[in-house]
Amino acid sequence: MSVKVAVNGFGTIGKRVAEAVLKQDDMTLVGVTKTKPDYLAMIASRMGSLYVPEDRVEKFQKAGIEVQGTLKDLLEKVDLVVDATPGGVGKEYKPLYEKFGVKAIFQGGEKHEVAGFSFSTLCNYEEAEGKQFARVVSCNTTGLLRLICALRNHFKVKSVRATIIRRGADPAETKKGPINAIVPNPVTLPSHHGVDVRTVLPDLDVQTVAAVVPTTIMHSHVLNVRFEEPVTREDVLKVLEEAPRILVIPSELSGVKDTAKIIELARDVGRKRYDLYELAIYEESVSVEGDELFLMQAVHQESIVTPENVDAIRALTGLVSKEESLKKTDSTLGIVR
Amino acid sequence: MSVKVAVNGFGTIGKRVAEAVLKQDDMTLVGVTKTKPDYLAMIASRMGSLYVPEDRVEKFQKAGIEVQGTLKDLLEKVDLVVDATPGGVGKEYKPLYEKFGVKAIFQGGEKHEVAGFSFSTLCNYEEAEGKQFARVVSCNTTGLLRLICALRNHFKVKSVRATIIRRGADPAETKKGPINAIVPNPVTLPSHHGVDVRTVLPDLDVQTVAAVVPTTIMHSHVLNVRFEEPVTREDVLKVLEEAPRILVIPSELSGVKDTAKIIELARDVGRKRYDLYELAIYEESVSVEGDELFLMQAVHQESIVTPENVDAIRALTGLVSKEESLKKTDSTLGIVR
Amino acid sequence: MSVKVAVNGFGTIGKRVAEAVLKQDDMTLVGVTKTKPDYLAMIASRMGSLYVPEDRVEKFQKAGIEVQGTLKDLLEKVDLVVDATPGGVGKEYKPLYEKFGVKAIFQGGEKHEVAGFSFSTLCNYEEAEGKQFARVVSCNTTGLLRLICALRNHFKVKSVRATIIRRGADPAETKKGPINAIVPNPVTLPSHHGVDVRTVLPDLDVQTVAAVVPTTIMHSHVLNVRFEEPVTREDVLKVLEEAPRILVIPSELSGVKDTAKIIELARDVGRKRYDLYELAIYEESVSVEGDELFLMQAVHQESIVTPENVDAIRALTGLVSKEESLKKTDSTLGIVR
Amino acid sequence: MSVKVAVNGFGTIGKRVAEAVLKQDDMTLVGVTKTKPDYLAMIASRMGSLYVPEDRVEKFQKAGIEVQGTLKDLLEKVDLVVDATPGGVGKEYKPLYEKFGVKAIFQGGEKHEVAGFSFSTLCNYEEAEGKQFARVVSCNTTGLLRLICALRNHFKVKSVRATIIRRGADPAETKKGPINAIVPNPVTLPSHHGVDVRTVLPDLDVQTVAAVVPTTIMHSHVLNVRFEEPVTREDVLKVLEEAPRILVIPSELSGVKDTAKIIELARDVGRKRYDLYELAIYEESVSVEGDELFLMQAVHQESIVTPENVDAIRALTGLVSKEESLKKTDSTLGIVR
Ligand SMILES: NC(=O)c1ccc[n+]([C@@H]2O[C@H](COP(=O)([O-])OP(=O)(O)OC[C@H]3O[C@@H](n4cnc5c(N)ncnc54)[C@H](O)[C@@H]3O)[C@@H](O)[C@H]2O)c1
Ligand SMILES: NC(=O)c1ccc[n+]([C@@H]2O[C@H](COP(=O)([O-])OP(=O)(O)OC[C@H]3O[C@@H](n4cnc5c(N)ncnc54)[C@H](O)[C@@H]3O)[C@@H](O)[C@H]2O)c1
Ligand SMILES: NC(=O)c1ccc[n+]([C@@H]2O[C@H](COP(=O)([O-])OP(=O)(O)OC[C@H]3O[C@@H](n4cnc5c(N)ncnc54)[C@H](O)[C@@H]3O)[C@@H](O)[C@H]2O)c1
Ligand SMILES: NC(=O)c1ccc[n+]([C@@H]2O[C@H](COP(=O)([O-])OP(=O)(O)OC[C@H]3O[C@@H](n4cnc5c(N)ncnc54)[C@H](O)[C@@H]3O)[C@@H](O)[C@H]2O)c1
Repeated sequence: MSVKVAVNGFGTIGKRVAEAVLKQDDMTLVGVTKTKPDYLAMIASRMGSLYVPEDRVEKFQKAGIEVQGTLKDLLEKVDLVVDATPGGVGKEYKPLYEKFGVKAIFQGGEKHEVAGFSFSTLCNYEEAEGKQFARVVSCNTTGLLRLICALRNHFKVKSVRATIIRRGADPAETKKGPINAIVPNPVTLPSHHGVDVRTVLPDLDVQTVAAVVPTTIMHSHVLNVRFEEPVTREDVLKVLEEAPRILVIPSELSGVKDTAKIIELARDVGRKRYDLYELAIYEESVSVEGDELFLMQAVHQESIVTPENVDAIRALTGLVSKEESLKKTDSTLGIVR
Repeated sequence: MSVKVAVNGFGTIGKRVAEAVLKQDDMTLVGVTKTKPDYLAMIASRMGSLYVPEDRVEKFQKAGIEVQGTLKDLLEKVDLVVDATPGGVGKEYKPLYEKFGVKAIFQGGEKHEVAGFSFSTLCNYEEAEGKQFARVVSCNTTGLLRLICALRNHFKVKSVRATIIRRGADPAETKKGPINAIVPNPVTLPSHHGVDVRTVLPDLDVQTVAAVVPTTIMHSHVLNVRFEEPVTREDVLKVLEEAPRILVIPSELSGVKDTAKIIELARDVGRKRYDLYELAIYEESVSVEGDELFLMQAVHQESIVTPENVDAIRALTGLVSKEESLKKTDSTLGIVR
Repeated sequence: MSVKVAVNGFGTIGKRVAEAVLKQDDMTLVGVTKTKPDYLAMIASRMGSLYVPEDRVEKFQKAGIEVQGTLKDLLEKVDLVVDATPGGVGKEYKPLYEKFGVKAIFQGGEKHEVAGFSFSTLCNYEEAEGKQFARVVSCNTTGLLRLICALRNHFKVKSVRATIIRRGADPAETKKGPINAIVPNPVTLPSHHGVDVRTVLPDLDVQTVAAVVPTTIMHSHVLNVRFEEPVTREDVLKVLEEAPRILVIPSELSGVKDTAKIIELARDVGRKRYDLYELAIYEESVSVEGDELFLMQAVHQESIVTPENVDAIRALTGLVSKEESLKKTDSTLGIVR
Repeated sequence: MSVKVAVNGFGTIGKRVAEAVLKQDDMTLVGVTKTKPDYLAMIASRMGSLYVPEDRVEKFQKAGIEVQGTLKDLLEKVDLVVDATPGGVGKEYKPLYEKFGVKAIFQGGEKHEVAGFSFSTLCNYEEAEGKQFARVVSCNTTGLLRLICALRNHFKVKSVRATIIRRGADPAETKKGPINAIVPNPVTLPSHHGVDVRTVLPDLDVQTVAAVVPTTIMHSHVLNVRFEEPVTREDVLKVLEEAPRILVIPSELSGVKDTAKIIELARDVGRKRYDLYELAIYEESVSVEGDELFLMQAVHQESIVTPENVDAIRALTGLVSKEESLKKTDSTLGIVR
């Protein structure tokens, strides 16, 4: 059986999820939707099939881009839609998804309540089964949860304090700043990222602070984790190195000492769009004092949620187990362990 | 009695300290030294008197800039030298200062050992008395110590965890990056800033992590302080508002919600060079949960150490008490409470 | 006689013009208007008097900021209003200004047609007399016109080709980008800046191209001017050095070799907000080959139009001659020759 | 016959040229050299074979990276070396290349005199034959020459005036600035780029001005070309669209309106490292008035010289004709027409 999938919103996230779906042998990409007739629409019309909101059909025809039909036509043909529309827009589409009786996966720009269930593969894959809706948490939350759930598998985590240094805009979003400032985001503490982590791990003592800085390529996190009892650096490193979707980078050995060099590495190994699905942790930053762990990690905001979206499709449709999904997703995306 | 002061190194820090000394009624600026005959040298030659290293005399003459003499000529005339040469250069000058029997104040770019005594007005003014050398700690450490010592005056501080988001370069340093990256600095944790705090407060449990980002105007700190017992937000805010050299900014009321707007405020109120001697704390960021405090603060790296340098001159020469020095420095520099 | 002046819109341009008006002995600042009750409003309420649009009165009262009255109250008291509202908003106010029979000066964000007359002191001061409306051209156009009219006073200018490298946002505009891109603006050539120059010099053969880059402090222009006959570098330099409101910077001598160092110079000499009213030209860049001139100049976008606004007040109200206005404006603003 | 090629210096340029050589059926990559044992060295040791300067052998062994031999060992095995060491270093290696009797291709960071012959495929491929040394001109010069030689094939070019808006650093060069400035480079006009163009087209009337800005991804050029006689926009566009290695981008249609979106396009179509070998010209920017052409183009500095390096290997060794080389290079690199 193959799940028939639509992707609504073929932007930064949508285009990646659509291409990832194409690589899976247990799902079929039936179509994607776009609202603007730009070059991505041309690519989309080549890739799967291109569908557009009803009121845009004419606009695309004028631009000479062939469309297969409307969003409604598309929803009729699929089992599940991955909603990758801009933050807050997914909520507007929920009634339509309900009407067409399709399962839907929302992204981190939507509130938890829109789906009622927030998803992160390593933390709660199994809980998704049977649900109609799921929300793949945001890039920052995904990064935090990869780390935290990996640690919680082996240690008793008492509390997590994290500073999130956010990229100001995605690379092609040239209208967004800041150009020369550090912007508390929000200025009222603690930030909502901790709250977001708790949509998946409700019992966790986690507090976060976030600031936006003038960079486009990656977020960075400074982590301060306390355990119930002392741990050793060796044990922590071992856990991180064996955890799925985490890349521990030996900075001194490799020369990879900042977010730009992490991206350069992804370019050099030939990742399409330099996508880094893995959470990157600087090995040298992993430091333990008693029951306290410090580390710095970097998140490629554009791509880190791609594998979780693919897993979420399987989790919602009950196709396979978590281990099986992890294996399929990671091997098709070229994620190394 | 008036202390006769020289400033060796008339750059970012030196020019500010020299101008601040000019405003004090208990010190005299005898001269400053420069190594390059640029426009600052012309300004310097107008301000106080301009002295240069011996091997540069000719260079300045060629550039048509009048000099009063050499560094050695200058050292003969003064009681104390503020060394504001680039990091690591001050150490080279120490033997000369010893030879001339002058007191010397080094900056944060020098190791603690160079002076053997690290200074921060609110924490250890009194300990300076009788010493020949002092080192005013770096801009980031000064910012951290202003906060910590203010808190310690009223609460029992158990531990401090801080993330330092550093500006990449001073505004006019156009050769330094990064342009588009977040750079762990250092990548090995914890960072040296915590160590630096302990040169002044040896018993403090403090750990820091630092990353450099592409901005020039201010550093930002994310603070997580734990106390021995629960505190209230109101108490903390009251302490901060009453502490010297701390500016608590009501962000919602004023619209001042990021480092760029803090600087705009300094420009609008007419601060020369938009210098902000005060540690700026976003009022809304001050958040307390039980015994734990979170807040975000911003440090104007170019100017925050200016008042501490002026105080250090008084502290080393035993002119007046800490309270008296604070009062004199702050009123002459226009620091508001 | 003293012209009674209002400033509508107390933002980047408005606050500077208001402060400049305060310094003139032949004009009186009756009041300024603000729409948001932020810290600038508090400063405004201290400076002149603060007026607000009718529908905002309550909002300011709630924020505890005293207002003197509404915009209409203000317009009744003045002879002339300087409109410094955001681009395109001034047009909406024109009927109101007409209704109240006040003269009005618009800014470069408005179309030429709004005022019907575009103003630049050195080019067409005299033409303003008797008019009700004038528009002070934009920062980039002001910079271009300062240069061109200075040259036209002494040489026959055949054509002007200019590349405008624009700052992406003003320093405190932290929401605007780009963060990491060069953005043709517009992508269709030639750009509107040449058209704007011709609102003042209709007969000029001028073509411009503009691109936006990730910097906040200054615009830069690359000029290629052709004359009817050969000129010498010496003659051009002499003209530029003697022209009003142009600062020819000897880069090698002073070390001032980029926009950041120009701003550092303005900070060091104590300009409020580091405002540089002068057009800055790098002396070394001035290069002549036969009938062709190349040079690079830098424009401090926030402040360059301040003197032209002050002059425009005098020009519209027929107070004094151009030479007299130039002298008054420049000496009160501290513009050096 | 297959030319045996070495690449000395496996950095930004070297790694690209080495990979491009691997794709050619008439050349063999014998080995590359690296000086630092970082992750690129590991990749290199997998790709071709890794050679290192004699004094580094031990260092690489310590880092656990296997090396095949020394640079001298490598030079003994090859016919030709592509020198991609940092600017100015290639010159130091020239005597060694002479000693080993190998042909050598230098990069734009070397002076013209080092090779005595500067190369750009479309302009002077045939002149390379029989020479021992060639220098592939810099990325900016390559971009300018692609345009100029394409135009010269069809029109009589009278003069070229160009403003070069340079990226401050390559993406992974995180130590280089500027962060917030526009830096004339050089401040003395005209810039050396025009001189560099004339190493290939000695008779051309070309003048350039360059400024560095805070971006990492692409350079941009503003071109003002004059012809001996009037041309039409249609004719120019046709020539550009048919010229090799030029990509004319319809900005309005595609939404690709700045350098960031050009790079996004390269990412989306799956170019490794988002390399854009083509010179990108914004279609809408192409504007003609009489005998004068304006346009804006963008240069991907990291990759634009890759095809020219491959061609230069063939040109120096007399393998095939220019047309044949263009065809082979472009089809293997996936350059579209
Ligand atoms: N960009 C990131 O870094 C990132 C990371 C993780 C999660 N997310 C989340 O993913 C979601 C999508 O973000 P993105 O960055 O891909 O946005 P985007 O702007 O790149 O893409 C959104 C796409 O939706 C389309 N669209 C816009 N309005 C639409 C409408 N009314 N109906 C249908 N399609 C519409 C747009 O054409 C575009 O193709 C958001 O919830 C966001 O918070 C983004
Ligand atoms: N810039 C900051 O943000 C900042 C903040 C706090 C502390 N500091 C510390 O202050 C010190 C000075 O830093 P800065 O930013 O003012 O540097 P700077 O480069 O701006 O100024 C240094 C000055 O020293 C002069 N100089 C250079 N070599 C010299 C020599 N051999 N002898 C005499 N003078 C010489 C230079 O001409 C220049 O005027 C450093 O220790 C630095 O770590 C800097
Ligand atoms: N900033 C520059 O670099 C610059 C340079 C030259 C010319 N200009 C032009 O000057 C004008 C003002 O630009 P700015 O940069 O000062 O803008 P700004 O946004 O800094 O200030 C605009 C001010 O107008 C107020 N305002 C907003 N809407 C209003 C309304 N409906 N009624 C009354 N007041 C309102 C705002 O509160 C603000 O105080 C524009 O035409 C702009 O194009 C700007
Ligand atoms: N980066 C660009 O945008 C660009 C574009 C066109 C041309 N170029 C030119 O290409 C050349 C290489 O530049 P790059 O950007 O690739 O530099 P790079 O710094 O990225 O790479 C240089 C390589 O040479 C190695 N190296 C350094 N010193 C060496 C030595 N003494 N002996 C042997 N190898 C040594 C380094 O390890 C590195 O691998 C320069 O001439 C440059 O001007 C660069």
